[in-house]
Amino acid sequence: MKQATPRVTIWNEFRHERSDPAVQRVYPAGIHEALREGLAPYGFELGTATLDEPEHGLPVDVLARTDVLVWWGHRAHDEVDEAIVDRVQRRVLEGMGLIVLHSGHYSKIFKRLMGTSCALLWREADEKERLWVVKPSHPIAAGLPPFFELAKEEMYGEFFDVPDPDELVLVSWFEGGEVFRSGCAYSRGNGKIFYFRPGHETYPTYYDEHVLRVIANAVRWTADERGAAPRFGNVQPLETIAAKD
Amino acid sequence: MKQATPRVTIWNEFRHERSDPAVQRVYPAGIHEALREGLAPYGFELGTATLDEPEHGLPVDVLARTDVLVWWGHRAHDEVDEAIVDRVQRRVLEGMGLIVLHSGHYSKIFKRLMGTSCALLWREADEKERLWVVKPSHPIAAGLPPFFELAKEEMYGEFFDVPDPDELVLVSWFEGGEVFRSGCAYSRGNGKIFYFRPGHETYPTYYDEHVLRVIANAVRWTADERGAAPRFGNVQPLETIAAKD
Amino acid sequence: MKQATPRVTIWNEFRHERSDPAVQRVYPAGIHEALREGLAPYGFELGTATLDEPEHGLPVDVLARTDVLVWWGHRAHDEVDEAIVDRVQRRVLEGMGLIVLHSGHYSKIFKRLMGTSCALLWREADEKERLWVVKPSHPIAAGLPPFFELAKEEMYGEFFDVPDPDELVLVSWFEGGEVFRSGCAYSRGNGKIFYFRPGHETYPTYYDEHVLRVIANAVRWTADERGAAPRFGNVQPLETIAAKD
Amino acid sequence: MKQATPRVTIWNEFRHERSDPAVQRVYPAGIHEALREGLAPYGFELGTATLDEPEHGLPVDVLARTDVLVWWGHRAHDEVDEAIVDRVQRRVLEGMGLIVLHSGHYSKIFKRLMGTSCALLWREADEKERLWVVKPSHPIAAGLPPFFELAKEEMYGEFFDVPDPDELVLVSWFEGGEVFRSGCAYSRGNGKIFYFRPGHETYPTYYDEHVLRVIANAVRWTADERGAAPRFGNVQPLETIAAKD
Repeated sequence: MKQATPRVTIWNEFRHERSDPAVQRVYPAGIHEALREGLAPYGFELGTATLDEPEHGLPVDVLARTDVLVWWGHRAHDEVDEAIVDRVQRRVLEGMGLIVLHSGHYSKIFKRLMGTSCALLWREADEKERLWVVKPSHPIAAGLPPFFELAKEEMYGEFFDVPDPDELVLVSWFEGGEVFRSGCAYSRGNGKIFYFRPGHETYPTYYDEHVLRVIANAVRWTADERGAAPRFGNVQPLETIAAKD
Repeated sequence: MKQATPRVTIWNEFRHERSDPAVQRVYPAGIHEALREGLAPYGFELGTATLDEPEHGLPVDVLARTDVLVWWGHRAHDEVDEAIVDRVQRRVLEGMGLIVLHSGHYSKIFKRLMGTSCALLWREADEKERLWVVKPSHPIAAGLPPFFELAKEEMYGEFFDVPDPDELVLVSWFEGGEVFRSGCAYSRGNGKIFYFRPGHETYPTYYDEHVLRVIANAVRWTADERGAAPRFGNVQPLETIAAKD
Repeated sequence: MKQATPRVTIWNEFRHERSDPAVQRVYPAGIHEALREGLAPYGFELGTATLDEPEHGLPVDVLARTDVLVWWGHRAHDEVDEAIVDRVQRRVLEGMGLIVLHSGHYSKIFKRLMGTSCALLWREADEKERLWVVKPSHPIAAGLPPFFELAKEEMYGEFFDVPDPDELVLVSWFEGGEVFRSGCAYSRGNGKIFYFRPGHETYPTYYDEHVLRVIANAVRWTADERGAAPRFGNVQPLETIAAKD
Repeated sequence: MKQATPRVTIWNEFRHERSDPAVQRVYPAGIHEALREGLAPYGFELGTATLDEPEHGLPVDVLARTDVLVWWGHRAHDEVDEAIVDRVQRRVLEGMGLIVLHSGHYSKIFKRLMGTSCALLWREADEKERLWVVKPSHPIAAGLPPFFELAKEEMYGEFFDVPDPDELVLVSWFEGGEVFRSGCAYSRGNGKIFYFRPGHETYPTYYDEHVLRVIANAVRWTADERGAAPRFGNVQPLETIAAKD
C-alpha cells in the first residue's frame, strides 16, 4: 500500500544562506527550512539535514527511516564524502525516493546514479521561465495547469547530458531562447528519482505554489508502494520444470 | 488526490461461458463475475458490462462514471460497435484507465489505441507459465514475489506487435520455449493503459491470487491522480512576453 | 545491409499551392517538388504522389517499391480514402519508413498509427522558432548544430497528444512562450516513423538547409536495415525442449 | 556520414584462457582473438587490448582512434584502474560506442555508466538458451530469425538491475525457467552502449554465427553518425530575441 505518511528528509548544502546576503534575504533560515514550511500542508513527516552536520546529517539510521530524500546543493558538491554518496546510492537502489533540485544536477549522487556528466548550458540574467506539462497523465502533473511561470530564474539549456528520462513530465521555455527538460522521472533499481530544475538560490522559487505542488507530487510518486526486494546471485539447485500431467 | 475508491467497470464478452461447457465449469457466472469477486477485497466500487447488453453495457453515463475499464474479449471482437469503440477511446484519452486482458490484445479498442496489428504467436498446450518481475519499482509490481507461476495456460509468444511499452513490468516464460512481454504499461492522452497477458478461458487463472493482485495494482495505477485536462487548439491573441523590470 | 539508395515517395496534398496565391509564391510547383529538389543532393531515388491522383498516387505497386514515405497534408485530411490509409498502415508495420511533416499531425494515417487525438496548440503570428537538439547521439541529429532557427513559422505548442516518443530528438522554442516536441521518433511493427514539426505552407521552411538535413537524416534512419519479418499466429506442434545430454 | 570502416578495439580480460584448461580448449588464443576472427568478414578495422598490457592496452591515443570498444571481463574487474575507467567513460560520452558482453555486466565501466548495481541471477548448468527478437525494427536485429538458440550457456535471470533500456532488442528464455533482457540498447551523452548477454568462457558461444551477427550489427549501430559535440557551460551575453519586422 501507498505510504500513509511518507517520511521525507530535506538535504541542503546550506552555505549560500550563511555567507551571501542576497541569498539570506530570500531564504533567511535556509532553503531546507523554506521547503519544510512549504511542504508542511501536504501531510508528510518532514526532517532536514545539512552538509556541515556530522555525516552530512545522513547517518545510517536517518537514511533507513527516510522514504524520500530531497537534495539541494551547489558550490560544495566536492565536499560531500564518497562514503555518504555510496550509502545514499544503495538506499535509492533499495527503494528510497530521491528528488534532485536545480544545481543538484552536478551533485555527486546525481552524477553517480545517472552515469553521465550531467552538464548543461546556463546563464544568470533574471529571465522568465515557463514550465509546460508534456505528460499530463503523470501523477507528478496532478493539479497543475497546462503551464506555470516563474517571473525570474536562472536559465538552464539543452543539451542536458542525462540519460533519456523514463518519463518526461515538464519542459521549460526561457525568455532568452532556450528550452530545457525540467521534470525528468527515472527508475533505478527498486527506487525512483525525479529531477526538477527550478530553484536558483537568489530567487524566491521555493515559495511558489506550483513549484511546491510539483515537489509534493514527486514525494508521493517516489514514495509509492513497489515490489518486494529482488533476488540476486547464484540460484541453486536448478529449478526444475515439473512434468506435465 | 488519488481516487479514494476507484470506480471499476469489468467488461466481458460473455459468450464462451454460455456456450462452451468446458468454460462454464471454470467460470459458471462468467469471467466478469469471477473478477468481481476476486477484486472485491481490494475495496473498489465494482460494476460489470457485457457484449450483448444494449450499447454493450457501456452507455455514455456508465463510461462517465467509470475510472477504470477492464476488458476481456475473444471470439466476438468484430461484433463490438465502432461507435462504442470511439466512445471508449475518447474516455481513455480524457483520463479513464483501461486494463486489457489476454485475448483482448485483438480487441478493436486495443488495436485502435496501439495503432499496430497486436499480432503474436500462440499455442494451446497446457503449458506452465512463469511471470517474472522486470521492473520492481513499478506500483503494478507491489507485493509480488520475484516471479509467480501458473500451472497451465495458453502460450503467447514474441514478436508481440505493439508499440514498445512505456514501462515493461512483467515478462513471461513458457515451458515450450517462448517468452512474452506480459505486463505492458502505456500512457495515451490523459489516460493510462495496462495490458496483462494471462487468462485463457479454459483455465482458472482469474482465481489466482497473484493474477488478482496484478489487476488490483493496475486499477490503482491507472486510476491515480493526474493533471488537469490539457488545452488544445488555436490560442489567440499572442501571449506576449512581459518586459523585464 | 543499409539500403544503398533508399526509394522515397513524397506525398503532398497539393491543394493550397493551386488555390492560394500566398502559398503559390513560396511553393510554385508544390511542396512536394520543393522537397524533391531539396533532397536531390542526398542521393535518394525520389518520387512524388498527390491527393488528386488516382488512389492518391499510392497504388499497391508504388507502395511496394517505396522504402520511405514522406507525408504533408493539411486542409483535406478527410478526403483521404480509408482503404489507402489501411494500405499505408500495413506497409509501415511491414517495414516501410514514414516521415510525417507539420500539419500531417492531423492526417488519418498519423492518427491511426499513434492511436491518440494528435491535438496541439497553434497560432499563426510569424514567430521565430528555435529547434534544439536534445538527443545528439541520434542519427537524425547527425551534422546539426546545437540548435537552428527559423525566422518565421506557425507556432505549435504542448500538450501534443501523441504517445511518448520512443526517442525525442528535437524540442522547439517559440517566441510567444511555447515549447513543442518537434522531432519524435517511433517504431511501430517492423517500421519506423518520424514526426517533424516545421513546414507551414506560407513560409519557405522547406528551403532551409537544416530542415532538409533533418528530413534526409530521417530518410536514412527510417530506411535502415532491420530484422526479417516476424512470425505470427498459431505455432504447432509444440517446439519441444530437447533433452540435455 | 556513417563510418565507412568503423575502428573497433576488442578488450578482453584474458585471464581464464591462460590459467583454466577448460577455457583454453575453447578459446586457445583468447576470447578477443576469437572475436577478431569472427568479426573479420564484416569489414571493420579490428584491434585488441587486454588487462595485463600497460594501461590495460587502452592508452589515450588508442581510445582516440577507437569508434567502438567491445568489453569482456569477469574475474578481475577490480584490477581495472579507475583512471582508465574515467577515460573510457569520457570517450563514451563524447561519442565512442561501447559493447559490453556477458560477465562484463559487473565491470567497473558498465556499472559506472549505468549507475546501478547491475546485479542479476545466475546458474551454471549447461542450459539451453533461446534469444527472441522483441524489436525487429532495430538495426541490431538485422538479418536475424525470429529467435536463435545456444545449446548450452550459463543462465542469467531477472531482475537485472540496470536502467530500463532505451530499446530492448532481445529477451532470453532459459531451460531452467528464467528469462533475461539479453540485448539492451542505451544512449549516454553522445555515445551509444549495447549490452549483450551470451558468452560464458567455457562455451563456444563466440563462434556462433547469430551471436557474431548481433555483435557486428551492434558495432554498426554504435558507430553510426551522430550530431556535433554539444555545447555546455555559461552562455553569455544573453542571446537576444530579434525584433519581428
